[in-house]
Amino acid sequence: MEELVALCKRRGFIFQSNEIYGGLQGLYDYGPLGVELKNNIKQSWWTSMVYDRDDIEGLDASILTHPEVLKYSGHEDTFSDPLVDCKSCGERFRADQVPDYCKEEDLTEPRQFNLMFKTNVGPVDDGESFAYLRPETAQQIFTNFKNVVDSTSRTLPFGIAQIGKAFRNEITPRNFIFRVREFEQMELEFFVEPGSDEDWHKKWVENRLSWWEEQGVSKDKLELLHVTGEDLAHYSKATVDIMYKFPHGLEELEGIANRTDFDLGSHSKNQEDLAISAKTAKNTSSNAKLAIQDIKTNKWVVPYVIEPSAGVDRGFLAILNESYQVQALENGKERVVLSLKPHLAPIKAAVIPLKKNNSELVDLAHKLKNELQNLRIGRVVVENTGNIGKSYRKHDEIGTPLCITIDFDSLEKNQATVRDRDSMEQKTIDISDIPDFFKDYLIK
Amino acid sequence: MEELVALCKRRGFIFQSNEIYGGLQGLYDYGPLGVELKNNIKQSWWTSMVYDRDDIEGLDASILTHPEVLKYSGHEDTFSDPLVDCKSCGERFRADQVPDYCKEEDLTEPRQFNLMFKTNVGPVDDGESFAYLRPETAQQIFTNFKNVVDSTSRTLPFGIAQIGKAFRNEITPRNFIFRVREFEQMELEFFVEPGSDEDWHKKWVENRLSWWEEQGVSKDKLELLHVTGEDLAHYSKATVDIMYKFPHGLEELEGIANRTDFDLGSHSKNQEDLAISAKTAKNTSSNAKLAIQDIKTNKWVVPYVIEPSAGVDRGFLAILNESYQVQALENGKERVVLSLKPHLAPIKAAVIPLKKNNSELVDLAHKLKNELQNLRIGRVVVENTGNIGKSYRKHDEIGTPLCITIDFDSLEKNQATVRDRDSMEQKTIDISDIPDFFKDYLIK
Repeated sequence: MEELVALCKRRGFIFQSNEIYGGLQGLYDYGPLGVELKNNIKQSWWTSMVYDRDDIEGLDASILTHPEVLKYSGHEDTFSDPLVDCKSCGERFRADQVPDYCKEEDLTEPRQFNLMFKTNVGPVDDGESFAYLRPETAQQIFTNFKNVVDSTSRTLPFGIAQIGKAFRNEITPRNFIFRVREFEQMELEFFVEPGSDEDWHKKWVENRLSWWEEQGVSKDKLELLHVTGEDLAHYSKATVDIMYKFPHGLEELEGIANRTDFDLGSHSKNQEDLAISAKTAKNTSSNAKLAIQDIKTNKWVVPYVIEPSAGVDRGFLAILNESYQVQALENGKERVVLSLKPHLAPIKAAVIPLKKNNSELVDLAHKLKNELQNLRIGRVVVENTGNIGKSYRKHDEIGTPLCITIDFDSLEKNQATVRDRDSMEQKTIDISDIPDFFKDYLIK
Repeated sequence: MEELVALCKRRGFIFQSNEIYGGLQGLYDYGPLGVELKNNIKQSWWTSMVYDRDDIEGLDASILTHPEVLKYSGHEDTFSDPLVDCKSCGERFRADQVPDYCKEEDLTEPRQFNLMFKTNVGPVDDGESFAYLRPETAQQIFTNFKNVVDSTSRTLPFGIAQIGKAFRNEITPRNFIFRVREFEQMELEFFVEPGSDEDWHKKWVENRLSWWEEQGVSKDKLELLHVTGEDLAHYSKATVDIMYKFPHGLEELEGIANRTDFDLGSHSKNQEDLAISAKTAKNTSSNAKLAIQDIKTNKWVVPYVIEPSAGVDRGFLAILNESYQVQALENGKERVVLSLKPHLAPIKAAVIPLKKNNSELVDLAHKLKNELQNLRIGRVVVENTGNIGKSYRKHDEIGTPLCITIDFDSLEKNQATVRDRDSMEQKTIDISDIPDFFKDYLIK
């Protein structure tokens, strides 16, 4: 993990947030390469959900959330961790994370600490006009259910996908970007006919496992955990967690829950008219019926929900961990390489002029860069350091799949040397063929 | 404006946030089409900044911000609006927005109301461990200046670009998504040699004007406003606002400010060793020197900053307003059409089977949809309503550039009818030629 953290800072993937003022615990900033990798992960998820399928719509809702949403969702009552104070050192800890130096007899009884951030909204600060920062993106998918159905005429089964920030006031953030106070989620709420929920739950577990493998997370580092007993959330009929062997241990990468009709039922008006199977609190505030009319029977149905919920930052960490390699070379030296899948690589190709001050070489490099860039497949850069070996090492370390060197043969014979990150093989290709080569390499 | 708001809700561009609980003022959710249009605007900005140029890096920093950042930036002292109470009705207003029904003699003296949201961080709520929700994305670009320079070896001039949410506790949010409490910004901080700042300022004003035109915002609805006198922010040497004729009036779409060395100077340690020209408060907290070493002279320089700062939501509203048209047709009827630039359209093409229950037609439509989708140029849908005319009207109204109808000729002669949104012209094209036609149409 230390090596990863160091690489992230040195190469501009991840910085500690607010670092020049001592930092804020559990907050990180994504640097020039990090923002590209993170965006590519999000894009890959969005493509697989919203574009490649025909049964999912997207959404991008506000972070600030009405307290009623998180009252009826159950978050106000249950979204909390047990907290203890140590009377000796004066510090606070999560009850299961008290350090050894605190003596048992100095600890207070655990009490529940709600993990939601709140903030005053509007010019009157009376403790009543406040909003929460959403602790998950899911709830605003449920509250928008009717809006989406009305505007798209969707029928069951269909899903709503959302990517966005969520916030949790973790008592003890830890393990780099794994457990943080501000993070990003990729959540799908997939609405199905009651009765078909168990089948869909299985399908989504399979689907999500395959997706992580397509992002380069190897099967043998993934495990399925069937959550049982008191670990199962109050809204869930069944939850399967996709666990990944992180550097700090086996932990959840994504959870796929069968939330039944709990959420739509909880946020709906006129609950008594709907055959809601989940145990929901009486809703006296909602102005919308969150149900859908069966086209055949005309009956109103409260759909069941299958929720695959993944963490972007956790995914980022897993993908980085998977791709990070220190390889022994034939000449006795070592190289660090990030063997990222090409579609995730922050930079797709680096065009390297052999001499940094030769304007013919540099101009040709820029011309080729622009041509590749205009294919709209991601970021392409000109790496003009004048040191080919150093450029290769840098681009291995940041996961650039292709390095293209422009030398004097490029000027005379219109050829360039293309080097593959993983095999380190170099081949000479006509410059006019490089755009097609690049496209075929990146879009598979 | 009312027509736009209605279209946005009906077709799934924008919904009021938290609507089922009565809504929260100044918050909106982007629906299935809105999220695509918004993402396309952001992608277009990112491409023009980070990909197509060679002198800009990206960043994605946290929303929660250390109070010291916003102390030294000047926000704690100056980021406020004057607020008055009406002793008669008990309401609060921005001093310049008091409604006519409040009598002058009932109003309190205006006092300053800080617009930043704050929230407690960590398990101890003592009023001291808090963070702000960033009121702009700019500040974390400045605080990461050294991290970015160290990890990328950039020299002047270069920029750092960021897209993300920002939050302002507006006293009276209004005009749909124009003035809201949670919004998204696209900000570039472009660092230059002192002395070259005025030239760069001019260049960036030109550049940003062209960009808005490329997004379909017509030149005759844009005006440049040279901000002067007390409207000029304390950090600015010169600011040019790009004003747009919104439905509710001429208002700022983007501001381009010459911020001098105020920001880096304000956040730097050892300020006395640096020749900072701006008037900055003494910084006793920063641990970083925010300057860059001149390669020739080895001298430390605090760069000047040119900041083009655009609002995503305002851009969305302007682009929607520009593209919305009600056209009289030859047959005496009307059609609503969103003439969005193809690269911004939420859906790039709709493939429409002539009959909704003919599996051969429907299968072929899905096959073509998948082929076009795999080109990775944006969202393509199958529109299977069985009503061609209705499908055309819908896709005109949501701005889909191309409708492709699969009919019996498609099965027999391998041809389909491609209809252009703007000209409404239809032509017959061999299905095998459609991917190239689609690509040429969308990537120009």
